[in-house]
Amino acid sequence: MPDASLLDTFPTPADSPLLIEHVNEEFTSVCPVTGHPDFGAVTLRYQPGDRCVELKSLKLYYQSFRNEGIYYEAATGEIRAHLVAAMAPAWLQVVTDWRGRGGIRSRIIATHGTVPEAWARG
Amino acid sequence: MPDASLLDTFPTPADSPLLIEHVNEEFTSVCPVTGHPDFGAVTLRYQPGDRCVELKSLKLYYQSFRNEGIYYEAATGEIRAHLVAAMAPAWLQVVTDWRGRGGIRSRIIATHGTVPEAWARG
Amino acid sequence: MPDASLLDTFPTPADSPLLIEHVNEEFTSVCPVTGHPDFGAVTLRYQPGDRCVELKSLKLYYQSFRNEGIYYEAATGEIRAHLVAAMAPAWLQVVTDWRGRGGIRSRIIATHGTVPEAWARG
Amino acid sequence: MPDASLLDTFPTPADSPLLIEHVNEEFTSVCPVTGHPDFGAVTLRYQPGDRCVELKSLKLYYQSFRNEGIYYEAATGEIRAHLVAAMAPAWLQVVTDWRGRGGIRSRIIATHGTVPEAWARG
Amino acid sequence: MPDASLLDTFPTPADSPLLIEHVNEEFTSVCPVTGHPDFGAVTLRYQPGDRCVELKSLKLYYQSFRNEGIYYEAATGEIRAHLVAAMAPAWLQVVTDWRGRGGIRSRIIATHGTVPEAWARG
Amino acid sequence: MPDASLLDTFPTPADSPLLIEHVNEEFTSVCPVTGHPDFGAVTLRYQPGDRCVELKSLKLYYQSFRNEGIYYEAATGEIRAHLVAAMAPAWLQVVTDWRGRGGIRSRIIATHGTVPEAWARG
Amino acid sequence: MPDASLLDTFPTPADSPLLIEHVNEEFTSVCPVTGHPDFGAVTLRYQPGDRCVELKSLKLYYQSFRNEGIYYEAATGEIRAHLVAAMAPAWLQVVTDWRGRGGIRSRIIATHGTVPEAWARG
Amino acid sequence: MPDASLLDTFPTPADSPLLIEHVNEEFTSVCPVTGHPDFGAVTLRYQPGDRCVELKSLKLYYQSFRNEGIYYEAATGEIRAHLVAAMAPAWLQVVTDWRGRGGIRSRIIATHGTVPEAWARG
Amino acid sequence: MPDASLLDTFPTPADSPLLIEHVNEEFTSVCPVTGHPDFGAVTLRYQPGDRCVELKSLKLYYQSFRNEGIYYEAATGEIRAHLVAAMAPAWLQVVTDWRGRGGIRSRIIATHGTVPEAWARG
Amino acid sequence: MPDASLLDTFPTPADSPLLIEHVNEEFTSVCPVTGHPDFGAVTLRYQPGDRCVELKSLKLYYQSFRNEGIYYEAATGEIRAHLVAAMAPAWLQVVTDWRGRGGIRSRIIATHGTVPEAWARG
Repeated sequence: MPDASLLDTFPTPADSPLLIEHVNEEFTSVCPVTGHPDFGAVTLRYQPGDRCVELKSLKLYYQSFRNEGIYYEAATGEIRAHLVAAMAPAWLQVVTDWRGRGGIRSRIIATHGTVPEAWARG
Repeated sequence: MPDASLLDTFPTPADSPLLIEHVNEEFTSVCPVTGHPDFGAVTLRYQPGDRCVELKSLKLYYQSFRNEGIYYEAATGEIRAHLVAAMAPAWLQVVTDWRGRGGIRSRIIATHGTVPEAWARG
Repeated sequence: MPDASLLDTFPTPADSPLLIEHVNEEFTSVCPVTGHPDFGAVTLRYQPGDRCVELKSLKLYYQSFRNEGIYYEAATGEIRAHLVAAMAPAWLQVVTDWRGRGGIRSRIIATHGTVPEAWARG
Repeated sequence: MPDASLLDTFPTPADSPLLIEHVNEEFTSVCPVTGHPDFGAVTLRYQPGDRCVELKSLKLYYQSFRNEGIYYEAATGEIRAHLVAAMAPAWLQVVTDWRGRGGIRSRIIATHGTVPEAWARG
Repeated sequence: MPDASLLDTFPTPADSPLLIEHVNEEFTSVCPVTGHPDFGAVTLRYQPGDRCVELKSLKLYYQSFRNEGIYYEAATGEIRAHLVAAMAPAWLQVVTDWRGRGGIRSRIIATHGTVPEAWARG
Repeated sequence: MPDASLLDTFPTPADSPLLIEHVNEEFTSVCPVTGHPDFGAVTLRYQPGDRCVELKSLKLYYQSFRNEGIYYEAATGEIRAHLVAAMAPAWLQVVTDWRGRGGIRSRIIATHGTVPEAWARG
Repeated sequence: MPDASLLDTFPTPADSPLLIEHVNEEFTSVCPVTGHPDFGAVTLRYQPGDRCVELKSLKLYYQSFRNEGIYYEAATGEIRAHLVAAMAPAWLQVVTDWRGRGGIRSRIIATHGTVPEAWARG
Repeated sequence: MPDASLLDTFPTPADSPLLIEHVNEEFTSVCPVTGHPDFGAVTLRYQPGDRCVELKSLKLYYQSFRNEGIYYEAATGEIRAHLVAAMAPAWLQVVTDWRGRGGIRSRIIATHGTVPEAWARG
Repeated sequence: MPDASLLDTFPTPADSPLLIEHVNEEFTSVCPVTGHPDFGAVTLRYQPGDRCVELKSLKLYYQSFRNEGIYYEAATGEIRAHLVAAMAPAWLQVVTDWRGRGGIRSRIIATHGTVPEAWARG
Repeated sequence: MPDASLLDTFPTPADSPLLIEHVNEEFTSVCPVTGHPDFGAVTLRYQPGDRCVELKSLKLYYQSFRNEGIYYEAATGEIRAHLVAAMAPAWLQVVTDWRGRGGIRSRIIATHGTVPEAWARG
């Protein structure tokens, strides 16, 4: 089950302006309708406030979705909410890319704050 | 025959701002002039209002064009109209990419509402 | 010899906003200086007014340059002029990409009307 | 030795707006410090005024750097100066991409006039 | 240990406007937590003021991180600070791309001054 | 329904040794279990005997599978049988590549006669 | 837990010679030492005897490894054993490609019977 | 009209063993049935005897097919015959790759003498 | 300093025939002449005897070359010797790919026992 | 002028079997007919006898062709002769890939001794 308590943070170690991107190509959850696994990638981009998310804790947090039945859109929104709560970033973007089903692949983009135009497409 | 009644929707499962993209690389219809099949990809992008299109219903809807004789531009416009009617999105873009004929390949872009500049090229 | 009378049009089959792109990777003409053939691709992009160019007629029109001795820039400008005259589009862009000679490859971009920024590079 | 007298021009053969790009992937000069050859590509982009640079003369001009000892930045600036003097373009951009040395590859961008934002990265 | 004294500069050898990019795909440092090596690429972009960084000195400077235990974000910020101090550029951007750990790869972007929008994503 | 009578042949127009390969990336049939369309590519390779298959007739023949419910393996075997009967080639290979279902994509290889080792993988 | 009883087969629907390849890029299991998930692709190639493996059952079988703690080599060997038992193929090859850990990615190849040289590398 | 008299040769300038490959990606002829142009690439490989084909003469020879109505297979065979007659090579292979028509692209391979297995696929 | 005592092995966990490949794209050592770092990839392939090399120990072993001054050829030979001693494989191949210096990149292949022809190029 | 005296060698630093490949993508010479520069890549592969070619000396040797007027085939043969004389390898292969002229690019392969089949295509 998604577990936001796994997320650790540390003080932002460099002056602004600073932008951070973490790409995890090994995300998996379960389709709540069919019970089949979904596979995808999760890209996190943010401008940190005072704190940054620690990388190993982020990995463990993503792994906590492994056996969760959840829709693409809901998973994307939930990751956004947990990370915003943990870090209070200036802005944040979560992009999920799903290998898809039935010949259709999908991308979901959830944002918090004012994401610069350059990232509008995810 | 294209059948918009196949489209199902569900309540948008996450707070705004949220953007959704579905890419179907297995679209086929029939050229209304020659009767030969056309092959292409359909990309749907939208910012949802209250409802999202359900993925399996979208697949079945696309399949309903399989034996329809229809021009590229008309198919693109029709998909836009059906999806706008089904979901009432904040904005929506339909991009069709056709493998083409006679050495010419084509892209058609139909939009509804104010699509952000980042997607202008489809 | 380039023959604009080959161009057929048909009424735009979908409501605006609609954008259309046709890529022909099989264009050839002749260098007016050396007599050697030039090979390239022609990309046409436009926002239609009331009429669209018919695809087969476009192919035949492009083929009419096959044995014409003409500079890159002149060919690009001539295609623009012929298509604007035939369709009266809201805007139009012609991009030619030439395999080049002497180790130099070239792109020429000719525009008509206000082409959105997203296509500025062709 | 770089020889701007090699550059020929001809009257711009099409109405504006017109943009022209020539990519030469076979550029070589010599490092002024080590004497080792440098290899790279030179991309020229411009909006012509009344005259365009002739392609074969451009090739010969680039070849005149072959045994010249010159820094990346200086070569890029010199090409810009010579071409601006020869053509008086509305705007012009010279981008050099160097295979590099010691594991570092480089790009230098020199501009003249107001280059549209779309080409800002070269 | 990172050693800014390794950085040499030389007078900017061409008139403005000039932009410079150096990509080093052979960067390595050490994770301060696990002691395992980190591997990545460092991209430097800047608009020079009166002085440019000399390429060989830049290589030696990057090599001085080889056995340093340092976080991604701190390394990126430190490189920015050292280069700004050495060159006083009009603007400067440092982008680090890390091969990553535990299935997550990362990009960090640190900027100084007003970096044009075209480079916002690094 | 697959219709072998659509296949036309013509006398082999060049002396041996001659090898011929035709790749059709626009093949579609229907899954006999689910009724959903399957999409794939069909590659035909052969060393002709006295006759070759005519290209347009081959296209029409492939199109005759469009609404046929048939397994991957059976379609591949049937194409082999029809083409061997039509042309009596020295050898022949049919390779089908299917976009697949449920995250699994497939290749089926059917051969007739002694296909040289170089094509063993399809 | 890996469950070979999920594997269904059906009579080979085409005459020999026939070769079959199924690529599943969505395989995941768990590292028996660290408990972290492993991600990879499984490629199955075989020359069928009297029976072929049914595609949907193959997918479900692969999914049964999802929460199994198992080494790369053992998983590959177990898949081979289960599929040989289910189908009695003329020959069979199982290739697993793992995204890897600590900067090292791996391929394991397990074979049964005489796999033709063309597939020796997997 | 194809004109073998355009082919010049020169004495082989290096000792054996020597292999030579020339790839021309700018070949065009005309379909004898429809009159539409065909576009493709011609790859020539050979082990020279006493003489090699001169490169500029080879270019002019290929250009002599420009307005010739000829089938893929016949063009490939004719090129083989002309080059064998001109050079008397130890062995020779002509591979033509055609952009194709109606969604089908083609490769034709014609050989003379004993082409080593490594080139069997063209 | 290269430390073969870091290599751990475990009993081969599956029956033969089994082939194993580990690719490490994060290898670095030091040039014994210039003192500059070398970067490369190391690919290990082997058919196990009774024991396999443990992946984490392999990573640590490769890391022990980090500050070693050693030639490409010597490093490749030393890795081969250490792994053969640790595992006694049926056959083994070590391929090193170096990013290179002065515009030249290199591959070194060291083998032990009879490596099947399919891997001859590394 | 090509200068074989630039080639240095050193004792082969690892036991057999060992294979070595050096790829230089920065080769240039001059066309003896037109005086225009030729650009290409030179790949050297060999199984060493007692001595290996030193990498920096190889670079300088290749640079000595910079202003030499020489045919593709002759340059390839000369490099082979010089390296065989310098190293006395068990076997050796020189592959030159030329960017080409008039739309035709070329590969020349010169060999000494018995090159294993795996490298037959260069």
